[in-house]
Order: sequence, then structure tokens, then C-alpha cells
Amino acid sequence: MDKKISLAVIKRLPRYYRYLGDLLDNGITRISSKDLSVRMNVTASQIRQDLNNFGCFGQQGYGYSVEFLYTEIKKILGLDKTYNLIIIGAGNIGQALANYVNFQKRGFNFIGIFDVNPRLIGLNIRGLEIMDIDKLEKFLSVNSIDIAVLTLPKNNAVKVCQTIIECGVKGIWNFSHVDLKTPDDVIVENVHLTDSLMTLSYKLSSGDFSDF
Amino acid sequence: MDKKISLAVIKRLPRYYRYLGDLLDNGITRISSKDLSVRMNVTASQIRQDLNNFGCFGQQGYGYSVEFLYTEIKKILGLDKTYNLIIIGAGNIGQALANYVNFQKRGFNFIGIFDVNPRLIGLNIRGLEIMDIDKLEKFLSVNSIDIAVLTLPKNNAVKVCQTIIECGVKGIWNFSHVDLKTPDDVIVENVHLTDSLMTLSYKLSSGDFSDF
Repeated sequence: MDKKISLAVIKRLPRYYRYLGDLLDNGITRISSKDLSVRMNVTASQIRQDLNNFGCFGQQGYGYSVEFLYTEIKKILGLDKTYNLIIIGAGNIGQALANYVNFQKRGFNFIGIFDVNPRLIGLNIRGLEIMDIDKLEKFLSVNSIDIAVLTLPKNNAVKVCQTIIECGVKGIWNFSHVDLKTPDDVIVENVHLTDSLMTLSYKLSSGDFSDF
Repeated sequence: MDKKISLAVIKRLPRYYRYLGDLLDNGITRISSKDLSVRMNVTASQIRQDLNNFGCFGQQGYGYSVEFLYTEIKKILGLDKTYNLIIIGAGNIGQALANYVNFQKRGFNFIGIFDVNPRLIGLNIRGLEIMDIDKLEKFLSVNSIDIAVLTLPKNNAVKVCQTIIECGVKGIWNFSHVDLKTPDDVIVENVHLTDSLMTLSYKLSSGDFSDF
């Protein structure tokens, strides 16, 4: 597949992947763009356009093969590979993520968790012992880490981000409430929970119910 | 302020609010669009356009008053009000959110937390006793709730969503991995963590580093 898929389409793929997984779980092997459009609440024409992008053409009167679609999207999303992750910041959110088994099912393996707090260091979270952040560089020198999850206060996040980048980490899943400045070849995906909650309060208080 | 602000601008406001709050914390009372643009990594012209939207005009050679901007954006985002929230699902993420003190500082008050799990019911999370989900309807009939936070498995989320809507809740902060179908006057803000992680794995595996 050499054709470049637009970012707008890529952004919708996790949602397709989720729906197709549900269909498979329910034993549904074929689906028409129309049926899928009703479930996903988008137009059938949008679905056909999106899926045509990566060579998935539904057959007239037959629909799409759910498994084929699922497998193709899985590959495009890079979910046919596995990833090594570390969590930096073993507070509530960090521990919650470490405890979330579904990530592992998708190939995201947490292999280390770090904190500065002496009361947390040594505690065991689903088989992982919380390590002293002082050991981070050493750990990164002997383990190949694809993604660092930053769940630490923003003041520390900037410094830690610099360290992990110097150690060669290319993917950052950032829950810290700060925008990180990184080189072009480092990918940051932000989850700013407070921003999300503010968007909700804006809509509630303004009565502006538009989808955005 | 009667002029309608575009959604694209509104979506950027939480980020402005965050930067302006940091400036205030650091005792900075005036800022030029140029300085703000360097900090926020957007163009100065974008900043001027955005801020002009709600009547904030920087003065030549003087810049913007940080506090005025901060207060205006606070009002627009509805953060000059307080909100009552309940958490439904006292698993890892639910407990993490309940424990996060910064939400309360912004006016988001958690006043109830519910679960189905008998081992969790009765436990105390930052002053809130986890209640049996069976008591949810009764609770909603005597408490005015602005936002329900859904942090429960997707199969239960759909049913619970129906209940809370029938009880008059208008805001839903949805962490459950399902798209909720709601009436037009109910606002749903989704935080789909797995989708976010998949976007990151797509970028890592494809080498497509574009920002989206």
C-alpha cells in the first residue's frame, strides 16, 4: 500500500477498528456500508470513501468482510507489532494505566514504572515494581523502549522528557499538563484531561452543543 | 459578548487558559502576542486573531493584560461557575479522577462515586464513600448533577447513560470505550484512551510524524 492516506481518515481508523472488533466479537462476518453507517452514525458514502483508501472495496450485495477490514486497519495502525512502554509517574493516573489490561491485549507492554516518591518506590503494580526515577537512564540504556507514558507533574515532565529523548525514546504519551517541545522525529500524543473537561464546561455553560 | 466565536477558536481556549495561568503564577502581568506566540508555538498573528474574537485587543508596545485575558477566557469556558459531578465506575481510572485535586480547584466538585462491585462499595476515596450503583437514581433525584463521569466497562456504560439522561443529567464525560447515543441537548465529551494510544502507534509504525 503506497498510497498516502489522509490524516483525517487515519484519525477515524481507531473508531473503525473498535466497531469492527465488536462485530467480530458478536460473530458478524459481513457488513454493508449502510449497516456500518447506522452503527457508527456516519454516512455510508463516508465509510465507502474511507475504506476505499486502503483498498477495501465492499462487494455489491455482499458487503465488506469484517475480518479483512479489521486486519487491514490493524496493520495500518501498527497494531500487528508490539511496543515496550514505561510509565513515568506512579500516581493515580500512572497506576491506573499500568493496571489496564486491555493495553497489553493490543500489544502495548508496560515493562517499567518510575517515580520520585520514596513511599511509592518498591510497591508492586500488576507485577511491576515501581523504580526510583534515578534508575531511569540506566534502565533505558539496557531496554529498548518505544513509548514513554508521562504521568507526572508538569514541572518534572519537561526535564524527564529531555532525558528520555536523549536516551532515544521516539514515542511519548503525555498526560502531563504541559506542551512538550521535542525534535521532529519524536512523536507526542497528548491527553490533556483538564482541557477536555474545560471543553465540556464550555459547552454546558454556553449552550453551544456543536460537535467538535 | 454576542458575537459567535468559531469552534476552532473555542477548542484552543483551554490551552490559552493554561498558558495564561502559568504566566500569572510566575508573576507576569503583561505579554505581547509575539512573546506568547513563542511560548505557545503558534504564530503571533493567530494569537491576535483568536484573542480579538472576544474583544481582547493588545495595545501597541504594551501587550495584553494577562489577568484580563485569563479572566475573560475563564468566563467563556464557563469556569467562573461550579459544577457538581459524579463518577460512575470506581475502578482505576474512576478512582484516579476522584483523587485528582486540580479538578476541584477549577470548580468541578465530585459529590458521588458509584460502582457495582461489592468489594469497592463502602470504600472511601478522598472523603467520598463509593455507593452501590443501585442507589444512583435515588441520588440523582435529590442532587443536582451537571456532569456524570463514565468510567465503567462499555457494556454497562450504555445502560447507565440512559438512566442518567432520564434523570436529567446534561453533561457526560465519557471514558468508556463506546460511543454513546444521546439526545441533542446532552453533551458528551469523550476521552478514548485506547484510540489515543492507537494514534501514537500508527505514527510510530508508519513514520508519519504529521501533527493531527
